Amino acid sequence: MRITAIRDVVAPIKSAIRNAYIDFSQMTASVVGIAADRGAPGAAGGRPIVGFGFNSNGRYAAQGLLRERFIPRLLAAPPESLLDEKGLIDPAKCWAAMMANEKPGGHGERSVAVGVLDMALWDLRAKAEGVPLWKLLADRYNDGKADPHAWVYAAGGYYYPGKSLKDLRDEMRHYRDLGYRAVKMKIGGSGLADDLARIEAALDVVGEGRFLAVDANGRFDLETALAYAKAIAPFDLCWFEEPVDPLDYLLHAVLAQRYPGALAAGENLFSMQDARNLLRHGGLRADRDVLQFDPALSYGLVEYLRTVEMVEAQGWSRRRLVPHGGHQFALNIAIGLGLGGNESYPLVFKPFGGFADTQRVEEGRIAPHTSPGIGFELKNDLYTVMKIIGEAVLAPDGPRGG
Amino acid sequence: MRITAIRDVVAPIKSAIRNAYIDFSQMTASVVGIAADRGAPGAAGGRPIVGFGFNSNGRYAAQGLLRERFIPRLLAAPPESLLDEKGLIDPAKCWAAMMANEKPGGHGERSVAVGVLDMALWDLRAKAEGVPLWKLLADRYNDGKADPHAWVYAAGGYYYPGKSLKDLRDEMRHYRDLGYRAVKMKIGGSGLADDLARIEAALDVVGEGRFLAVDANGRFDLETALAYAKAIAPFDLCWFEEPVDPLDYLLHAVLAQRYPGALAAGENLFSMQDARNLLRHGGLRADRDVLQFDPALSYGLVEYLRTVEMVEAQGWSRRRLVPHGGHQFALNIAIGLGLGGNESYPLVFKPFGGFADTQRVEEGRIAPHTSPGIGFELKNDLYTVMKIIGEAVLAPDGPRGG
Repeated sequence: MRITAIRDVVAPIKSAIRNAYIDFSQMTASVVGIAADRGAPGAAGGRPIVGFGFNSNGRYAAQGLLRERFIPRLLAAPPESLLDEKGLIDPAKCWAAMMANEKPGGHGERSVAVGVLDMALWDLRAKAEGVPLWKLLADRYNDGKADPHAWVYAAGGYYYPGKSLKDLRDEMRHYRDLGYRAVKMKIGGSGLADDLARIEAALDVVGEGRFLAVDANGRFDLETALAYAKAIAPFDLCWFEEPVDPLDYLLHAVLAQRYPGALAAGENLFSMQDARNLLRHGGLRADRDVLQFDPALSYGLVEYLRTVEMVEAQGWSRRRLVPHGGHQFALNIAIGLGLGGNESYPLVFKPFGGFADTQRVEEGRIAPHTSPGIGFELKNDLYTVMKIIGEAVLAPDGPRGG
Repeated sequence: MRITAIRDVVAPIKSAIRNAYIDFSQMTASVVGIAADRGAPGAAGGRPIVGFGFNSNGRYAAQGLLRERFIPRLLAAPPESLLDEKGLIDPAKCWAAMMANEKPGGHGERSVAVGVLDMALWDLRAKAEGVPLWKLLADRYNDGKADPHAWVYAAGGYYYPGKSLKDLRDEMRHYRDLGYRAVKMKIGGSGLADDLARIEAALDVVGEGRFLAVDANGRFDLETALAYAKAIAPFDLCWFEEPVDPLDYLLHAVLAQRYPGALAAGENLFSMQDARNLLRHGGLRADRDVLQFDPALSYGLVEYLRTVEMVEAQGWSRRRLVPHGGHQFALNIAIGLGLGGNESYPLVFKPFGGFADTQRVEEGRIAPHTSPGIGFELKNDLYTVMKIIGEAVLAPDGPRGG
């Protein structure tokens, strides 16, 4: 089995939405297709396979990095050096080839480029074995015990011009009508008084605090974070997410001392080392807080497996892990590895957010898909984009990379 | 005053050298030129000015990121939004424009792209005022008190195929003949016994431990770091650099408890937040350890000024700061802000490493240059490259960016 070609494109995922830190009017995503022939025993002579990957929202497309370093390194590696003992392409060996001659530290941007390719390599690998990725992961890393479903919550509640409290309530009602129990909304983009009115409007719809999470996107300083913490504590919310700068571990620790409810953090930490620092120095509480590292932005699943191992070594349950991103990759990982659940974006970041068309949310939970790989072929709006890349990467006269 | 055009190119700085973590056979650097007309009072009608920047070694060229995000944002900003009260281009305002819609955390790669442009903007600004950058910095940020010279040390002692102890001694002797007192060599790329023989060979030449620093490039685990620490402690070396992963603050703290000599760290931390975590959680000692944050890799001088402020707020002297990179930008900063000194690469990373041709090293120190800006025009091998970019960026019919 060997990689025959890799293609990447940049897709816009722009939107008029805004959180407390950035607007999304220029947001983009990289999409890659990796084609491989089938050299595995028993599969010889079949059609070539294509694995697909894309980057999660919040960070930009990584086309330059993909083309300058990571795609060329993967294509330059001796094909046999990328195979495991089954003769199939091994994402961990690919990872080592991609990260050759990269210095330690500085985990940003390249973690996105590697994550996009890693997602495609796992899709490819699961397809080569003819199983859904969640099944492959459960068999390899979780004693065969996949979860029957994953807890999911609907992330939304963004700011946009002219959005009223009624609009916010309607949005939250829409999520509940789709089958979600828990929802998430942004805070920190306007004042505390305005945000409290917004929180109360959302609570009108979802009923209980445990069904509403709030997300400040790392915007607050100590004083503001403490003011919000004090004001929202009586609501006993599902969680208070990214209250402060993702790298200010000391501030996390202060807040964890003062806020009795659950905190959530980690979507802007992109390596096992950064995640480990959050646990070592961030003062978070293993009995309630939530860790949101996003495998697609953080060097992919090969690195995420290291993170899961580290999290457990620090005394945390992997049920405290609820990845950021709302993508099918993380959903497979949550189900296969037995994590705490997964984010979902029912209304934004189309076509990358969301799950297979066959997967319905029921009582805030979602059952796994059944097709080989990550399940992109079952998500029509996304596969419309991927099919074009799939055809390009299989074109007999095309270049190998680019 | 307004930016008229920006150009970037990728230059190879490849070399057969190797440290404990990577080889440099594929290393590249981005070089940019930013042209501006002279709109400042009293300067109207003069020739346009060009500021130059490049990225320091160890991280790769950032062409994709420059062209995808940071150059377009700078060119799209309203020209008057980039000026200060003097009517001159303000690197801090440019920084804010470049970093708009970037999420917090994930400080790598984009920190290089912004750093390259920031260097060019400071070169431009100092040229617009007709002063060397070190003078501008001393006047703005150091009560006018520039140092008369900076302590510099010669970084080398790399591994390369077939390099003998005699070769290493000859290399160190060459640095001493050039006027350096202190030198630095790599360790961790072969075994402890071999490295000890190499250290002793270098000490044969430089005489005293305080003239020899060693650099493990973040390669060691706890056990190896402690074994090296124990073995080299008797030499009382200048410093023991990057013993462990740059983000493993806990391991730094353990080592600082066990190793009596000076440790050096920070070249792979690329933001004020990461630097702050090293000081908060790394257990380093303000009376002896050395902080090597590289402004060119870390979002430039605008961010480095925040780092200097943070370092002092943590109770450290800025004399403990000795930037990584061996470039003229950091030399200007060291002299202007009164840091502890600067790295130098007499033999590698040409033409980016090294200082103005007019600047001689004497007794391990170097005096400042005298021309406006960073002084690139006084370094012939580097200016040969920059002149081409300078002509391209001033071409009347050229595009504004790219």
